[in-house]
Amino acid sequence: MKERVIPSQSGAAFLLKRGQILKVIDPEGQQVSDLFCVSANDRNEWFSAGRSIDYNDTIYLTEGHTLYSNRSSPMLKWSKDTCGRHDALMTPCSLKMFQIVAGNREYHPSCDENLAKNLAQYDISPDRIGTTLNLFMNVHTAPETGKLSIHPPRSKPGDYVELEALMDLVVGLTACSHEETNAGKCKPIRYQIA
Amino acid sequence: MKERVIPSQSGAAFLLKRGQILKVIDPEGQQVSDLFCVSANDRNEWFSAGRSIDYNDTIYLTEGHTLYSNRSSPMLKWSKDTCGRHDALMTPCSLKMFQIVAGNREYHPSCDENLAKNLAQYDISPDRIGTTLNLFMNVHTAPETGKLSIHPPRSKPGDYVELEALMDLVVGLTACSHEETNAGKCKPIRYQIA
Repeated sequence: MKERVIPSQSGAAFLLKRGQILKVIDPEGQQVSDLFCVSANDRNEWFSAGRSIDYNDTIYLTEGHTLYSNRSSPMLKWSKDTCGRHDALMTPCSLKMFQIVAGNREYHPSCDENLAKNLAQYDISPDRIGTTLNLFMNVHTAPETGKLSIHPPRSKPGDYVELEALMDLVVGLTACSHEETNAGKCKPIRYQIA
Repeated sequence: MKERVIPSQSGAAFLLKRGQILKVIDPEGQQVSDLFCVSANDRNEWFSAGRSIDYNDTIYLTEGHTLYSNRSSPMLKWSKDTCGRHDALMTPCSLKMFQIVAGNREYHPSCDENLAKNLAQYDISPDRIGTTLNLFMNVHTAPETGKLSIHPPRSKPGDYVELEALMDLVVGLTACSHEETNAGKCKPIRYQIA
């Protein structure tokens, strides 16, 4: 089984056939990987974080959960998770996010750009890219104010997740570009398809 | 200013021009209203709950916040809120939600169907309808498990919100169909456009 590397602050897109298992590995620890997927047979069916958290009754998706599409169809079965903490509330970091939230004026690489660029090879419009499944991302919400806070990922070197495709998918995957999200340093991500 | 009624378990869709203010009123109290909007000039630009909570740094959107599109453009400015608690995590209740979560086998009216039906008049595909802004909906997330729980709305009779359009919009709006979400009884919603 070939292991592929997503270099720091970049992304990849690939086909994942029904029944195949995608393993996403955080090789150095404390590195987030944003995942977005679209039906390989219909570009208008895509991952819905909102339906996934609703039907699983938790904002913290993990092993045992099913990930759903905007049409409420099962897309991925989460079969293994050695980390246990991921996010499904936030949209991928984007150039506009760095401008609006951080006041950046300069270019900054982003998951949004890396997903858009790679998914474009499969004719998937960037407008589809909504809230992603942010693997290893550690987001807290304050009980009464709802304030979001980004904590260092809980993933240790070698932690991984396995997701089984329940339909033919195009998957976009990144090594997240936002220093703050990744405990101060952006690192690579590795993945395998079995 | 004409006030319109959305009867219990139904919906509406309408144009909201840039600069106009939409007032959504909960006339009897404890009634949720799901809102989704799309650019009137480009059906591929729609409300993004994920970007809105990200850029406002809270899951509890309210007065003073700006609501963003999937392209990170400002869509609505939240100018007034007499209730103070709304949800932006959950997708609208849907026939599939009632089947998957509640195990329903029979038909049940839903916000998803009511949004889809009304937005179809403006050539908006139901695939666009992702996580909605769920006005007056009271959702808690448990700190460590992330478990979602739906509490009775905090809205009292006559509570309202005002949202100012920052671009020309098509707005879909419902009187939510899910008994549990609305303190046991589904009631009407009223709205005005000024």
